[in-house]
Amino acid sequence: MTTLSPDAKGYILTLSCPNRPGIVAALSQTLFEAGANITEAQQFDDTGSGSFFMRIMFDIVKGGRTEADLRGIVETLTSQFQMKYRLNCQSYRPKVMILVSKFDHCLVDLLYRWRIGELQIDPVGIIANHPEETYRDVDFYGIPFHYLPITKDTKTEQEARIFSLVQESQTELVVLARYMQILSNDMAAAFSGRCINIHHSFLPGFKGARPYHQAWNRGVKLIGATAHYVTSDLDEGPIIEQDVERISHADSPEDLIRKGRDIERRVLSRAVRYHIEMRTILNGNKTIVFNS
Amino acid sequence: MTTLSPDAKGYILTLSCPNRPGIVAALSQTLFEAGANITEAQQFDDTGSGSFFMRIMFDIVKGGRTEADLRGIVETLTSQFQMKYRLNCQSYRPKVMILVSKFDHCLVDLLYRWRIGELQIDPVGIIANHPEETYRDVDFYGIPFHYLPITKDTKTEQEARIFSLVQESQTELVVLARYMQILSNDMAAAFSGRCINIHHSFLPGFKGARPYHQAWNRGVKLIGATAHYVTSDLDEGPIIEQDVERISHADSPEDLIRKGRDIERRVLSRAVRYHIEMRTILNGNKTIVFNS
Amino acid sequence: MTTLSPDAKGYILTLSCPNRPGIVAALSQTLFEAGANITEAQQFDDTGSGSFFMRIMFDIVKGGRTEADLRGIVETLTSQFQMKYRLNCQSYRPKVMILVSKFDHCLVDLLYRWRIGELQIDPVGIIANHPEETYRDVDFYGIPFHYLPITKDTKTEQEARIFSLVQESQTELVVLARYMQILSNDMAAAFSGRCINIHHSFLPGFKGARPYHQAWNRGVKLIGATAHYVTSDLDEGPIIEQDVERISHADSPEDLIRKGRDIERRVLSRAVRYHIEMRTILNGNKTIVFNS
Amino acid sequence: MTTLSPDAKGYILTLSCPNRPGIVAALSQTLFEAGANITEAQQFDDTGSGSFFMRIMFDIVKGGRTEADLRGIVETLTSQFQMKYRLNCQSYRPKVMILVSKFDHCLVDLLYRWRIGELQIDPVGIIANHPEETYRDVDFYGIPFHYLPITKDTKTEQEARIFSLVQESQTELVVLARYMQILSNDMAAAFSGRCINIHHSFLPGFKGARPYHQAWNRGVKLIGATAHYVTSDLDEGPIIEQDVERISHADSPEDLIRKGRDIERRVLSRAVRYHIEMRTILNGNKTIVFNS
Repeated sequence: MTTLSPDAKGYILTLSCPNRPGIVAALSQTLFEAGANITEAQQFDDTGSGSFFMRIMFDIVKGGRTEADLRGIVETLTSQFQMKYRLNCQSYRPKVMILVSKFDHCLVDLLYRWRIGELQIDPVGIIANHPEETYRDVDFYGIPFHYLPITKDTKTEQEARIFSLVQESQTELVVLARYMQILSNDMAAAFSGRCINIHHSFLPGFKGARPYHQAWNRGVKLIGATAHYVTSDLDEGPIIEQDVERISHADSPEDLIRKGRDIERRVLSRAVRYHIEMRTILNGNKTIVFNS
Repeated sequence: MTTLSPDAKGYILTLSCPNRPGIVAALSQTLFEAGANITEAQQFDDTGSGSFFMRIMFDIVKGGRTEADLRGIVETLTSQFQMKYRLNCQSYRPKVMILVSKFDHCLVDLLYRWRIGELQIDPVGIIANHPEETYRDVDFYGIPFHYLPITKDTKTEQEARIFSLVQESQTELVVLARYMQILSNDMAAAFSGRCINIHHSFLPGFKGARPYHQAWNRGVKLIGATAHYVTSDLDEGPIIEQDVERISHADSPEDLIRKGRDIERRVLSRAVRYHIEMRTILNGNKTIVFNS
Repeated sequence: MTTLSPDAKGYILTLSCPNRPGIVAALSQTLFEAGANITEAQQFDDTGSGSFFMRIMFDIVKGGRTEADLRGIVETLTSQFQMKYRLNCQSYRPKVMILVSKFDHCLVDLLYRWRIGELQIDPVGIIANHPEETYRDVDFYGIPFHYLPITKDTKTEQEARIFSLVQESQTELVVLARYMQILSNDMAAAFSGRCINIHHSFLPGFKGARPYHQAWNRGVKLIGATAHYVTSDLDEGPIIEQDVERISHADSPEDLIRKGRDIERRVLSRAVRYHIEMRTILNGNKTIVFNS
Repeated sequence: MTTLSPDAKGYILTLSCPNRPGIVAALSQTLFEAGANITEAQQFDDTGSGSFFMRIMFDIVKGGRTEADLRGIVETLTSQFQMKYRLNCQSYRPKVMILVSKFDHCLVDLLYRWRIGELQIDPVGIIANHPEETYRDVDFYGIPFHYLPITKDTKTEQEARIFSLVQESQTELVVLARYMQILSNDMAAAFSGRCINIHHSFLPGFKGARPYHQAWNRGVKLIGATAHYVTSDLDEGPIIEQDVERISHADSPEDLIRKGRDIERRVLSRAVRYHIEMRTILNGNKTIVFNS
């Protein structure tokens, strides 16, 4: 990634629209005239759907266009091409709510990456369906912790409380860090495009419960993990990132679980990074991931 | 792998039996008394099923026990422990029949590895459901070629002819090198434990037809291939080997097919090597693979 | 990769120049006015050296600008920005000369990929320092074969003959497919930027002779291969592609050589594909590789 | 890994000796007579050096031989074959001292794996050349922390204090978790075979300082990390484990450092696990690693 000059302010712009000639020309001309210096750009033409996707990083020298000016300029251009777009400062830290169940390896890993500055997020809360005592060895660094137990009977209220916490905190990204609860359709719809789950299998293999035991029973020779946007279809949402590790006949289900923890945490953290760096764009039930 | 002394004859012994104390002691004592020098040994205790599996490589100095003697000794021992076993010279080349459809990359790769001495097989025939003309650019090195076209109506007869060819040639291993036809249940049963298929997906994901297109539609971020023993359950047989490669949103189905060819040929050739080197032992619907 | 419409002619344009604002705007405006439809574009700003690199794929509808027109337009623009550029039709097949020594796995693999249409090259010759008899099992498909033996005393003349063959055949890419001879400085300079070598180690580890034996002696746990542009510094040229495989203490040097063959052929074929699809641009002693 | 029956006590035995016929027979007969049930066994014959290496896991039923008895039996046998051996209970937790410098990702990762029971160690101390304040965000879980600053002039005394701490605590394994100081020859010799370092490159490439910057300058396409036993030869000790990740021309040195952290922590934790589970045996300047 390009290092920003101290005299400049960096922006990230992503956009998607029906493809037609002249988009890049209009866009780059507009940004040039606005005083922007493009430092990174990636595009993808989906010839099947006729859609165009782009991610642009650019700098504005200090004293140049203000962010408000810039938003006006981009607004004018994008409406002309029926573009959906997002524009953020490169220094922007999205507000993130982390949901967790009993296993804390993904939670601890995300907090570590945030603490050392690797993940540029603003964690606004941790929600768990186990009491705080369960995480007595985890340092929350002052992030608000919410114990929201859930039973079959209380699911609706529990989800309502999650939704309130997300609303009140202005959460922009919900991360299911091995949360192990299936969101209701309403909840999944409410969080559409801003809720990432880690599933502990190489999807579409081994959906549902106890995937490592499923994998062990099937006798596969590699196990994996999948980070995806949550939709109302269980384990069917758009995939952001996957990875695998080799196993052998000598590995027990417990060995798979151990190896899996390493895969899960690196896959989830990559997916979160791609999302917050605006490297992901939804394309139907798939994702564009502009990673380097 | 250990290099054999020129003054010795090398053997490979695999065995499986219900586990009980004293197996290894009895086995190693017997081999020691027979003048065998163990050069490699691997074992696996399946604590779930209470089964014991072992693969032993050993040498007999020239002038020592004959193969016939050795078979008698092993026979006596294994009957005592209710062992299933296989014993072969390390220099043994199993007879292999290769079945192929239109795409020849796995066939060409297997023939190449055989030609340079990497795969120690004796190819006794190539069976195709396309005419010889389809493979005009492939050098068969004199291996008999059989054109056996297949339609829905002729499937039974075609399989009968395959079965005859396998019987007459004393084929020990049938390799479906992208054969693209589903064997009948009878055929699958007849070839049980001695027929390896390459499926062009990371099973259990994307069973059945056009797996690369299925993978592209699902938007996975890694694609794979799976070599497995054929059973009457389509794409459900015991897995021998799997591997994957990374893809991105920018890859078309054609790119997946191209990347997949590389995965398929290395996965299939590894599986064939494991089988002919007697590194695989069936364990229910799973495989033990004693690879280094 | 985008599939080209049958009514259009596809082009690939790569360029590099000192970075300055407005390049992308000018470029995309020019191409837009020329009737080009950009289907793929990747750029890289090297902030250290202040250099800008770009690869653009675009279509011109049939009946639109001719290639000659287009070259004029690009010429005018690129001279304005002091750009080095290359422009080719997407259907262009560069002339390739393959040099080989005793081991033929990379040669056979390249020919296979060319034969099935995976590698869009025009192979104009094969040069070997072993007689044709060495390759009696290799189908050259009518590609001219040149036996050019080499000794310490004849190196200068041998290289002169190679150079003549390259000149006469208008070879655009020389591939050292395990050629195992060190090119003289003059030769390396003459082929600068258009000669790819495969070295059978994970460079910069194990330069020079017998790298698998070096790796075995050092006891590494992964072995690799490296494809790079040839320079006068042995095994120090700009790296295009690398890959690795896991080994264990139980693997002999011969096992490393066997596993290495698979790594070498996939690394070399990827590097050749990147080069002929104009995905590589030299950046000092490094390469930009715009792969998907 | 096999799960131990609650009615049994598990042991691990490793041994190495000059190879000769009858070792396995004598060993398995002795263990059988001692009432041991072998649950896992791996062996390696180094035909080059004529050495034999073995790792055996076995159970003794409760009420069977005591550990003292067992040690006597193994002692008698091993002296007969000039074997070097180690025998431990499977539940044994070796005492581990962790040395760290400014970067804490490997330290935090080791502590996490220990805390959740993945790494069966007894951490007896943390030694750092930065003050405790540097690690204010790290939970040491009560493990003694020792601040031992080091300068060129105080190296001898600092190392003497390290050595005292190691002696007093009866440390069995010293882990250099990105300690970034070169041990003196004396120190390296004193810790021979019981000190593991993580080097942040794919050795033998990029020895010494700032390996990620070296890798970036060289333009490699994969970066790696290497865990090895420390010897007086800097970055030349026997390698236990290595791994790599793909990078591209677009990755800055900072990106390499970020990706590298993930590689380092998984490579180091695997190496520590292999060591404490007695899966590693030294073989000259190489290691045998009996992993599953």
